[in-house]
Amino acid sequence: MRNETGVADAAMDAAIDAVIDAAIQEVNHRAHGRMSDRFRRVRRQSQAIAEPLSVEDCCVQSMPDASPIKWHLAHATWFFETFILERFEDGFHAFHPQFRMLYNSYYEGVGDKFPRPQRGLLTRPSLDEVQAYRADIDHRMLLLIDALEAGEDAASAGHQRLHAHLAEFMELLELGLQHEQQHQELMLTDIKHLLSLNPLKPAYQEMPESLRIAAPVQLPLDWHRIGAGVVEIGHAGPGFCFDNEKPRHRQFVEAYQCASRLVNNAEYRAFIEAGGYRDAALWLSEGWEWKRQLKLEYPIYWQRDEAGGWREFTEYGLQPLEPYRAAVHLSYYEADAYARWAGARLLTEAEWEHAVGRLQGRGREFFGVAWQWTSSSYAPYAGYVAPAGAVGEYNGKFMVNQYVLRGSSSATPLNHARLTYRNFFPAYARWQATGIRLARTG
Amino acid sequence: MRNETGVADAAMDAAIDAVIDAAIQEVNHRAHGRMSDRFRRVRRQSQAIAEPLSVEDCCVQSMPDASPIKWHLAHATWFFETFILERFEDGFHAFHPQFRMLYNSYYEGVGDKFPRPQRGLLTRPSLDEVQAYRADIDHRMLLLIDALEAGEDAASAGHQRLHAHLAEFMELLELGLQHEQQHQELMLTDIKHLLSLNPLKPAYQEMPESLRIAAPVQLPLDWHRIGAGVVEIGHAGPGFCFDNEKPRHRQFVEAYQCASRLVNNAEYRAFIEAGGYRDAALWLSEGWEWKRQLKLEYPIYWQRDEAGGWREFTEYGLQPLEPYRAAVHLSYYEADAYARWAGARLLTEAEWEHAVGRLQGRGREFFGVAWQWTSSSYAPYAGYVAPAGAVGEYNGKFMVNQYVLRGSSSATPLNHARLTYRNFFPAYARWQATGIRLARTG
Amino acid sequence: MRNETGVADAAMDAAIDAVIDAAIQEVNHRAHGRMSDRFRRVRRQSQAIAEPLSVEDCCVQSMPDASPIKWHLAHATWFFETFILERFEDGFHAFHPQFRMLYNSYYEGVGDKFPRPQRGLLTRPSLDEVQAYRADIDHRMLLLIDALEAGEDAASAGHQRLHAHLAEFMELLELGLQHEQQHQELMLTDIKHLLSLNPLKPAYQEMPESLRIAAPVQLPLDWHRIGAGVVEIGHAGPGFCFDNEKPRHRQFVEAYQCASRLVNNAEYRAFIEAGGYRDAALWLSEGWEWKRQLKLEYPIYWQRDEAGGWREFTEYGLQPLEPYRAAVHLSYYEADAYARWAGARLLTEAEWEHAVGRLQGRGREFFGVAWQWTSSSYAPYAGYVAPAGAVGEYNGKFMVNQYVLRGSSSATPLNHARLTYRNFFPAYARWQATGIRLARTG
Amino acid sequence: MRNETGVADAAMDAAIDAVIDAAIQEVNHRAHGRMSDRFRRVRRQSQAIAEPLSVEDCCVQSMPDASPIKWHLAHATWFFETFILERFEDGFHAFHPQFRMLYNSYYEGVGDKFPRPQRGLLTRPSLDEVQAYRADIDHRMLLLIDALEAGEDAASAGHQRLHAHLAEFMELLELGLQHEQQHQELMLTDIKHLLSLNPLKPAYQEMPESLRIAAPVQLPLDWHRIGAGVVEIGHAGPGFCFDNEKPRHRQFVEAYQCASRLVNNAEYRAFIEAGGYRDAALWLSEGWEWKRQLKLEYPIYWQRDEAGGWREFTEYGLQPLEPYRAAVHLSYYEADAYARWAGARLLTEAEWEHAVGRLQGRGREFFGVAWQWTSSSYAPYAGYVAPAGAVGEYNGKFMVNQYVLRGSSSATPLNHARLTYRNFFPAYARWQATGIRLARTG
Repeated sequence: MRNETGVADAAMDAAIDAVIDAAIQEVNHRAHGRMSDRFRRVRRQSQAIAEPLSVEDCCVQSMPDASPIKWHLAHATWFFETFILERFEDGFHAFHPQFRMLYNSYYEGVGDKFPRPQRGLLTRPSLDEVQAYRADIDHRMLLLIDALEAGEDAASAGHQRLHAHLAEFMELLELGLQHEQQHQELMLTDIKHLLSLNPLKPAYQEMPESLRIAAPVQLPLDWHRIGAGVVEIGHAGPGFCFDNEKPRHRQFVEAYQCASRLVNNAEYRAFIEAGGYRDAALWLSEGWEWKRQLKLEYPIYWQRDEAGGWREFTEYGLQPLEPYRAAVHLSYYEADAYARWAGARLLTEAEWEHAVGRLQGRGREFFGVAWQWTSSSYAPYAGYVAPAGAVGEYNGKFMVNQYVLRGSSSATPLNHARLTYRNFFPAYARWQATGIRLARTG
Repeated sequence: MRNETGVADAAMDAAIDAVIDAAIQEVNHRAHGRMSDRFRRVRRQSQAIAEPLSVEDCCVQSMPDASPIKWHLAHATWFFETFILERFEDGFHAFHPQFRMLYNSYYEGVGDKFPRPQRGLLTRPSLDEVQAYRADIDHRMLLLIDALEAGEDAASAGHQRLHAHLAEFMELLELGLQHEQQHQELMLTDIKHLLSLNPLKPAYQEMPESLRIAAPVQLPLDWHRIGAGVVEIGHAGPGFCFDNEKPRHRQFVEAYQCASRLVNNAEYRAFIEAGGYRDAALWLSEGWEWKRQLKLEYPIYWQRDEAGGWREFTEYGLQPLEPYRAAVHLSYYEADAYARWAGARLLTEAEWEHAVGRLQGRGREFFGVAWQWTSSSYAPYAGYVAPAGAVGEYNGKFMVNQYVLRGSSSATPLNHARLTYRNFFPAYARWQATGIRLARTG
Repeated sequence: MRNETGVADAAMDAAIDAVIDAAIQEVNHRAHGRMSDRFRRVRRQSQAIAEPLSVEDCCVQSMPDASPIKWHLAHATWFFETFILERFEDGFHAFHPQFRMLYNSYYEGVGDKFPRPQRGLLTRPSLDEVQAYRADIDHRMLLLIDALEAGEDAASAGHQRLHAHLAEFMELLELGLQHEQQHQELMLTDIKHLLSLNPLKPAYQEMPESLRIAAPVQLPLDWHRIGAGVVEIGHAGPGFCFDNEKPRHRQFVEAYQCASRLVNNAEYRAFIEAGGYRDAALWLSEGWEWKRQLKLEYPIYWQRDEAGGWREFTEYGLQPLEPYRAAVHLSYYEADAYARWAGARLLTEAEWEHAVGRLQGRGREFFGVAWQWTSSSYAPYAGYVAPAGAVGEYNGKFMVNQYVLRGSSSATPLNHARLTYRNFFPAYARWQATGIRLARTG
Repeated sequence: MRNETGVADAAMDAAIDAVIDAAIQEVNHRAHGRMSDRFRRVRRQSQAIAEPLSVEDCCVQSMPDASPIKWHLAHATWFFETFILERFEDGFHAFHPQFRMLYNSYYEGVGDKFPRPQRGLLTRPSLDEVQAYRADIDHRMLLLIDALEAGEDAASAGHQRLHAHLAEFMELLELGLQHEQQHQELMLTDIKHLLSLNPLKPAYQEMPESLRIAAPVQLPLDWHRIGAGVVEIGHAGPGFCFDNEKPRHRQFVEAYQCASRLVNNAEYRAFIEAGGYRDAALWLSEGWEWKRQLKLEYPIYWQRDEAGGWREFTEYGLQPLEPYRAAVHLSYYEADAYARWAGARLLTEAEWEHAVGRLQGRGREFFGVAWQWTSSSYAPYAGYVAPAGAVGEYNGKFMVNQYVLRGSSSATPLNHARLTYRNFFPAYARWQATGIRLARTG
């Protein structure tokens, strides 16, 4: 049977190899490459994401959970200005006196912030001004980085500070870049949400020729059994990780089985057509109420076409539903209900992280396809300590009523995924590229 | 004392004369001028209003009660396309198949409409596309109008229809232009609201030199006594009016006194500083609750400055509060509370309309300064009949829980005001240029 | 045809006569009867209304617009304690220190008040305690009244005050009794609303034998034409009226026609079955939206039975819909939509008041059947002045966004109706016994 | 120092002994006692809780999260009728045809249910009728139980069923009793909430003499260190447990320290007075927003007195705050913020359950004082399987966005607590007797 899907397997394996290669290259880059190059590359990528969009597309906010593209572009820049330049730049001056407040997302330690649900009201500063902001901060950041890379003497007071706190500077720089990469994914999901609400159903970009001819093929669904035991999870270094991935610590997992791939559209469609959205017994009570109030009958970006088939709103506009593509944009409630219907359950995050290591090569779609809901509530690891200062608000204060997602999606920047990465969203979130990997106990 | 304000008086008189002159010219124009010129002039004025704005400014919606500038530009065009071209154009084709739905404001008789609170989500069609829409409809409208003006034979089926229903065509054309003028005022008030929510407090336009040097002077507040009797109000023609101004009919008014001018900022400030916003006895119960929930202490566009003075957000950005300018952007609740505090009341609309005729030359600020709240609920005149078809939804269906405003404001197009004009808004509306003219009984 | 309904006509006429007789007797009573008797009678009537109810029925609040029966009983008592005893009783002491706040409905001038939507939380004071409160205040009120009636010398300081302000005392006493009568009607409509929400559909009382055998018969619908002219409306005395009925003043009414009776259930049912609730063209825009959000398809107390017929929840529980009984419990939106469907409109309050005088004997159901929505917004009459002090809050502060209802309903105390009476409710109110009298212009 | 608190220690030890004794007696009872006695005892206890309350107190619902006492009394009865009698009684007939719907809490598998937020509208059935319902079901249940205990032959069809499914009957019977005990605690917390909203601050009962003279004394706060390792948690039997306590399974806990007692009022007051409610850095982001919107500055039942001290609303009415009593009625957000302020954290549920076993005798207030928030989200244990049928909805469907509480409170029935018991509430819940036990890592 494997033979029948050989071509796709090969394509998939190649894709996985590509991810791994990219990761390795990145590690090399970080070790040996020039930080200034990396800085430029990451910053340029945000611009590239905004490139296909009009000035209007970049300004509007589709819901309180999403932000305008222009705001993302400015906020990622604000992070560098506020947490690095303000601390390390000699003779620092704010680019604009009100940007500190306007583009502060949620850092109470930094002071006032503009209310999140009103970000779409900011027609000014214009996109041009935000681009000027980016250029200015880039220039000033690169002066610092270049100076370091050139091994310059620490003549000025600023540079003295820089040298005295080099490790901290490098950490914040890396955090700023990782932060911008997180926003790159949000830019893609937020603009998708905005465009989906437009009756014209505009495409973010044209579908590339390659995708048009090569539909995903059906992968078999295998169950991999993994024995009970004490496992270690969490980041052990070297290399960057977010604070919430630490410390590496022990957890006990009972014996379980892990699905070899994600649930695909054909399977999720079968759930719908079997009455999955009408059977309370399949749903968490809160999920059932959520579904009832929103009158949901299928995933957020699906719609029935006239002929009784299904279409899905994608970055390429409205497209026929691909049966063998992983089902995405599912809430935790939907993922949990599907799993119950399928006689299975979601993985815990410890099970997930442990499985990836155990199944190397035998498990698929762990990365680059869809974030995978786990049944683990987002909570501090045993021994977790939030960093000091406003940066300590980055992750820790969100550790309640959210669920951990593992892996990465097609919208995640290539070198941003990580085995120990803990993404998190509330159970009702559907606007992210979130999917389902099944598990069974025993 | 009058002498001291002589210069300002003269300026004011000149302004009033200008309004009257413009009105007369307009009447002449309508009688003798070319309709095609008038069409061009009105349409061009909408473009002129959008001129100082960025593409982003034109796209965003600040609240459900307001609409994006781009939407106004498209909707006013939709009115001509839907109610005139669709009926009279030979071989009519829709400019875009979805615009009929996208830019339908509230006409149930026309079919589906895009939900009002989501108008700001329409980043597409772009402003460019909306401008192309305007150009196309202008062109097609002018073909019809030009043909009429050229006295062309009615060769085509379309032109035959046109000639057979000439009166109806002319009425709808006039209605379309008046409609666009109404939206011109809304464009100015909606953009003001949007910009006011921006912490940068951007100006819609620069204050002209003339305004900068000539502040309004203090006008005396006189009371004009008007005797009881049966009066006639409502439009008697000739000339255009909206359906809600008809029929002309009789009302009885008891003897009353009418203030010679509007309440000014200095007076309204005295009300605030006397505790007007903290004394329940001054307010309608519903207004008190409204104020309490929104935690209001002064008008929407006022703010205290550091020195204990007041500033007002205007189309020229944040400016020192002008004491002798009419207080504007007041809700009905605020207007009513102020009047009670001042030992007076608001006029009914019959009193207002009757007073203007009686006080010619002795009453000021009836037009061109601020819409004046009346205590009259918006209701059909005795004998009112709504026009047939979807156009009948223009006014009649809003005749509940709104209050009539009379006169016109500084944002009203010059030749749009009219003695019998009935503007209307809900009692909580503050985003229009609405002010207070006091009255007393007896 | 009239002959066929002769019996019913006779019954109806007799009923009308009864109302008139009662009114006359009451007037006589007031003139010649003992005030102490009247006080006892009105107070006893409130007890009688609560009589069929359980302690639980008396405690619960079904919605913010309604109040618990127990609260009504206490509040009507509070009115006498606060506005009369506190002012006129020698050595006044509050029955309970917190009742002043607990049972204050909306008088800001009296101080704090317990939030209206939470009245149902007051399981304490118990119904027994409220009855004790009533008994105590009754006793103390009667001491004052009796002293007056006995022509006692004004020995004590309290009695001196009483004699010095006799007119004021008598006015407040009458206001207190009228106030209690208003609450008697509200008790009936509020308990009906509460019981209607109970799936057991309990009856407030058993249907009397007389009603069970004598269904209303069909009355013809005639139109009475009334000519244009200046009319006088408002209370001219003698006798009690509320402040909002004054002053008597002039209004002009154009010629109109007034329906001889109210719209009945059979007619309203025809409106429903003709699609009245599905045709936007019939509704005020705000009413259509209200109806859409509440998903209404028929009046609040109607329900379809299994056989496709209709039942109505009444004080006697769920009953078959009586075709020739006046349709009641309609909102202003429904009344207005029905009138439009029927090619008619609602009366203004001036038309209504004028018609009653003109149609004596020829018009029916003006009183005692259903309050009749007028198209008049609740506003002060020309020359209206609210009384001084907290009592001035009785009516005046509600004069916005409400509509005037005229006549009286089957729930109105017999001697409480009055030609000039102005009842008022917001347009969405359906829990009162509100019906439709049609009018036509010309 | 221990000596100084010797008396209190002795009292405390005695209390603990009492709990343990009661538990042992109960186990004996269950093993050897008559089930019919136990049934009577539990059922009688619900009546005893309602005893001090008026009919009105029993009817009203203070918020959607709470239920009326009368509803609790009926619902606990419904459980026996629906899940036991309907299945096992020969010739079963419903006590009332609509009770199945009226008193269904949340079992979708049972059919319709009356909406939770409207439970307070049910003035009918009356409390008397509910008591009759209880008596009837008690009688019928005891017929079944007595028959079993008498070792009767299974003559009737019903008894045949009973004998054939004896284990299932006994399990459901036990579940029904445990279920009623859960509602006994809710009755106490729900009535407390209702009474707290009453400005009269009525007491549920009089404070017993014993409590009046013996205030709690200060206990030292010790930290007990517990080493890392694989621990087993969950119910291993014998004896009853809820489905969510199974299966017993392994978890790994890193080394930690557990506080010897709960946080007391004096400590929590210090947190408040140190500005704990004003420092965003101490709060979870969601908790901060929750606190901000509700404008909270201290716990739900605390209030400042005139002298700057604190009072607490208790079952004995408003009382001076006892400094050395455990702080209760805290939300998860407050518990978490306090812990952060104190340089500590909450325990996980595995840590909690493990600690109780390890600290026997050295740790206090694990039971009978306050439910203790853990940082563990309520989730299925590895290997959890929900029971089949509607009873399967008892626990499983609530396993999202809630947090586990361990121990028991002063409101928990004496023999209802259990080492493995998992209580759960949403993070905002404050109306339960919920407190804080601190932990530290390492």
